[in-house]
Formats: sequence, C-alpha cells, structure tokens
Amino acid sequence: LTSVAIVGTTRWGTTLAIVLGRKGVPVRIWARTPREAQFINRVRENPLVPGFPLPDSVAVTASAGEAVAGAALVIFAVPSQTLRANLNAVKKHLTPGQLLVSAAKGLEEATACRMSQVMAAELDPRLHEGIAVLSGPNLSGEILRGLPAATVVAAREEAVAREAQRLLGGSYLRAEVTTDVVGVEMGGALKNIIAIGAGLADGVGSGENAKAVLVTRGLGDMVRLAVACGGREETLLGLAGLGDLLATGFSPLSRNHFVGQQLARGCSLAEVLAGQQGVCEGVPTARAAWRLSQEVGVEVPVFRYIYQLLFEGLPPQQVAAVLLGTSAELAPSR
Amino acid sequence: LTSVAIVGTTRWGTTLAIVLGRKGVPVRIWARTPREAQFINRVRENPLVPGFPLPDSVAVTASAGEAVAGAALVIFAVPSQTLRANLNAVKKHLTPGQLLVSAAKGLEEATACRMSQVMAAELDPRLHEGIAVLSGPNLSGEILRGLPAATVVAAREEAVAREAQRLLGGSYLRAEVTTDVVGVEMGGALKNIIAIGAGLADGVGSGENAKAVLVTRGLGDMVRLAVACGGREETLLGLAGLGDLLATGFSPLSRNHFVGQQLARGCSLAEVLAGQQGVCEGVPTARAAWRLSQEVGVEVPVFRYIYQLLFEGLPPQQVAAVLLGTSAELAPSR
Repeated sequence: LTSVAIVGTTRWGTTLAIVLGRKGVPVRIWARTPREAQFINRVRENPLVPGFPLPDSVAVTASAGEAVAGAALVIFAVPSQTLRANLNAVKKHLTPGQLLVSAAKGLEEATACRMSQVMAAELDPRLHEGIAVLSGPNLSGEILRGLPAATVVAAREEAVAREAQRLLGGSYLRAEVTTDVVGVEMGGALKNIIAIGAGLADGVGSGENAKAVLVTRGLGDMVRLAVACGGREETLLGLAGLGDLLATGFSPLSRNHFVGQQLARGCSLAEVLAGQQGVCEGVPTARAAWRLSQEVGVEVPVFRYIYQLLFEGLPPQQVAAVLLGTSAELAPSR
Repeated sequence: LTSVAIVGTTRWGTTLAIVLGRKGVPVRIWARTPREAQFINRVRENPLVPGFPLPDSVAVTASAGEAVAGAALVIFAVPSQTLRANLNAVKKHLTPGQLLVSAAKGLEEATACRMSQVMAAELDPRLHEGIAVLSGPNLSGEILRGLPAATVVAAREEAVAREAQRLLGGSYLRAEVTTDVVGVEMGGALKNIIAIGAGLADGVGSGENAKAVLVTRGLGDMVRLAVACGGREETLLGLAGLGDLLATGFSPLSRNHFVGQQLARGCSLAEVLAGQQGVCEGVPTARAAWRLSQEVGVEVPVFRYIYQLLFEGLPPQQVAAVLLGTSAELAPSR
C-alpha cells in the first residue's frame, strides 16, 4: 500500500493523518522528540486534536528516516517560519519520485519566500518535480467530523498535482487541481492578513457593514499582489483565495482574527503573541507581503496599514478609521 | 434647502430618510395610505424601524405629488416587484432634472429587467438622464446606530452619480461613484440568490468549509452573468457585489438566508413565504437570473440549482449535495 509521511504533529498535520488513516492509508507522522512520538503512539490521540483518536494505520515516530523514506507522499504541515529547518532535518531521506506537499499557509518572514520557493531552495534539484502545495477552505474540526470540504492542490506539472489529488482526496475531502502554484500559495498566506483586519474591525466594534468594506478591499490587495507575483486572478477568486478567506478569515476562532481583536483592545503585539497558543501565520506574513508589494511595485493599502499596525506602532484606532472606510484614503482610484 | 423624497415606507427607505433627516435635509416619505402616513407622522416612528424616531425634518404623506414634486432627489425604496406600479403612481409628478434613484435589490420576475430598465421603460425619456441606482453592504440597523458604512451610487453619466453621492453621502455613510449601472444592480440582486444557498447550507448543517465552497462558486456565477449582461468584473468584486454578499448574504437575519434554511428543513416554498414578514427578493430574482443566463448563454450552476430548488421541486438534499461540493458536478472546468 502507498504510504504517506506527515512532517509535523500540528493540528492540521494530524487532521490530514486521520483523514488518510480512515481510508486505510499507512501514515507515519514525524514528531520532534521521541518523547512526543511515544506519548501520542501510546494514547492514540494528539492533545492538539482532542476527541479524534488516530486510526490504526497511523503511527508517530521521531526518526526522520523512518517517517519519510519511501513514502509516496510527504506532507509538510509545519508553521511557515519553521519549514526551512524541517526540510533540512529530513531532506537526506528524500528521494526523486516522492510527492512533496507543503500544507503551510504563510510566507517566510526573513525572505518573503513562498513555501514552494523555500522547498526549491533547500532541496536537491532532482526532487523539485515533486513539489506541490495544498491550500483551501479547510477548518480542521469540520473535516475531522466528516463534513464535506474541498481543497486545492497545485504543482507546476498538472500530472504531479493529479497524483497528489488522487492520494489526498476522498469522498468528503475533494481536491481540485491547478498548475497555479503561486496563486494557491498567495491565497492561503495573504488571507491571514485580512483576517487580522477583520479581527481589528470586530475589536473596535465597527459592525458588519464596515468589516465587509475592509474584507472586500483586502481581497483586492490579495488579487493584485498575487497576480503581480505571477498568480492567476481566477485562483485568488476561487477556493484557495476567497474560499479560504470566507471559511477561516472570518472565524472568531482564527488566531489571526484574535490578534487583530486584541490589538484593537489596546494590547501590544508582543503581549498578544506571548499569550497565544500556537502560531499566528498572519503576523510574519504581513511583513513579507509588505516587502513583496514594494519589490513588485503594487499598491496594497489594506496590507500596508496592517503592516504599520503590527510593526510600526500605528495606533489601532487610526488604522481602523482608514480601513473601515471612515477615511477617504482608501477610496478606490478608478 | 434641497429636499429629498422617499417612495416607500420600507425599513430601508425609512433608514435613508432618518440618515438624511439627521443631516437636516427636508425629507418627505410617500406612504400608500393616508392612514399609514398619519400614523407614522403622529408617533414619529415607523413600526418597521422600532427605536429610531424620525428627525424633525422628515414628514410622511400619502399624496404622491406632495412627496415627489420638486424634490431634488427621489429614492425608490420599494420591493423590486412593485417598482413598476410605484413608478406609475408617481411619474406624473416627476420633472426633468430630478435625480431618480432605485434602492431596490432585485430583478423583475416577469421580465428579468433590472430596476433601472424598469425605470427607463416607465418614465418619459426626458427623465432618463436622472436615473441612478444605489446598492452596497448596508445593514440598516448598523447605519441607524451610526456605525460607519460605505455604499455605491451608479449612473450612466458620472456627473449624475456624483450629484447623488453629494446628496446621499455623509460622514458615516460614504458613497462611492461608478458609471457601471449594470454591475451595481446585478451585484445587489444576485447576491440574494447566493444568500438562499448559504441558508440551505446552514439548514442542512454542512459547516463553514462547504458553505465557503458554495459562496465562492456563487460569486463566480454572479460575476459571469453580470459581465455577460454588460457589467464590469471589478464592480462585482467591489462593495456592491462581494461587499454586499459579505455583509448581508451571510447573515442569519437575512430573509433570503431564512428561506434557504427553511427549505432545507422540509418546508415548502409557499409555506416559508406565507410565514414571512416582508419580501424575500431572492426568490423572484432567482427566476429572473435563470432566464437571463439562458438569454445571454452563460453557465451559472449555483443559480441553476437554486432555481430548480425553488421552482422545479428538486429536493433540498439533492441540491445541497451538488452545491456543497460533495458531488463532482460543480467542479470548475478550467
């Protein structure tokens, strides 16, 4: 039987392992420490995914070789800022012909690289053909409960994306296929910045009308920046862009939304991040997106104000006034 | 002082009257009966807008001539299916130079006409230059409470739209201007069909992931149909399209959403509509949009299934299975 490796014991990685395990696919999850691997193997449950036991075909190991060597599909389900280190930890066990899928939704803060660019930079060129990305409107809790969902798989070669689709898809998680790797990655990453803005809107209590203005303009930024970087507009308006924004960007459960909300209430970014469990992808992505927008010369007013809110100390009330349409600055220049 | 007439004692018409009245603009609202006019004038509150008294400069009259004659701006805030009758009731009092703004969000069921087309058909050609439309993400409750909001005004001549913007806009209700009348009207009308679909998704309990799939694909239908009818994509992706969909299409308070939800629970359309206060614009609009899509030869799978749900007895479970991505039929053919 075709086997799958999951790099990372994150909530999303474990969710994918459970979905695949329920189909009977042998899955090995790579944990950072033997202690974590032993613990999850013993209790058959990841504490980040309570209530959803691992199917019998899923095992956890702290050995990188044991996890990824020989797997038909290796899914990197780690925070974006740690992908490079994780690749370095496992890459000597990878071989040409393996499908290597990034499931992280962010841009690397230090380089403004997309995840597939980080993979290409770190991996032997003979492995590059197998690089693919996975992104879409995928709240893991719903997928675990067996509710229907759709996602998008992208690779430069359509045949590679189709193979990932075949391995990942099932009756209730349907995978669409595209060759627009840039568009899919930008959608998953940039929607996190808009989610911070939506949280800011909720935090200042500006209402649904004003939040709709902000999110609509944010989608405009997302499309412009992604297209300037080589993505296709239709991808950003599809499941990996707008779809993901609708499903996860609005949710008060989103960590990005929470950050925006807490900043509106007067907390500092350091305070909010220190008090948070897990990683908020939108914060490093906001810095990377702002840098990218300057490199490609595209105007992204929503992203700019969120960047200034996060990193330049622009007061939340001032940012809200601009982003929520009570100031003229964002009126589209058509 | 410039005066404004509002045709219709609807919630939205009354909201606009209150917003204008708070700026000190003299407003006359046209009510259908002397009894209704007297009642609202006496209690200084429209029962459809409880808790928000009419400002002193707002009066209600049952005389069409008294309401509209001489007003710089006449706003038609009536259900779409009654616009034609309302135009006929007031048109002999209208004169060239008046701004005539439709604030209704629907298509005429019997003709598939947009509201500005109904106005052009019913009004003397010398009045046509003043025709404009108003649409956007405008939950009236929030606007009444003074929360910030933005809306869109469209007219064929930009100067006409700018004049409407000047009369309508204010510090907390900002109006954008465009000459894309078709796009603005199609956005406000078609989003109601998607809201029925979102209600269906919630009614069958399919979760946020699946609802995001449906709404994303519905926006695709909206853009394709509007563009085929002469609208601009950017308008549909702006405040009058996506913005309105975000603010009002998702709300469980939306009458369209409620209809979809009740159908999912096994009620018949007749039962749902009979039990509902006010008008559900999405139902007649769904029929008109389906007809339009056939006339212009555009594929709108989400609108088609909602049409079949409403008018051809297709079972809600079957419609949900297709629209929520658990069936392959809607996979985009890219």
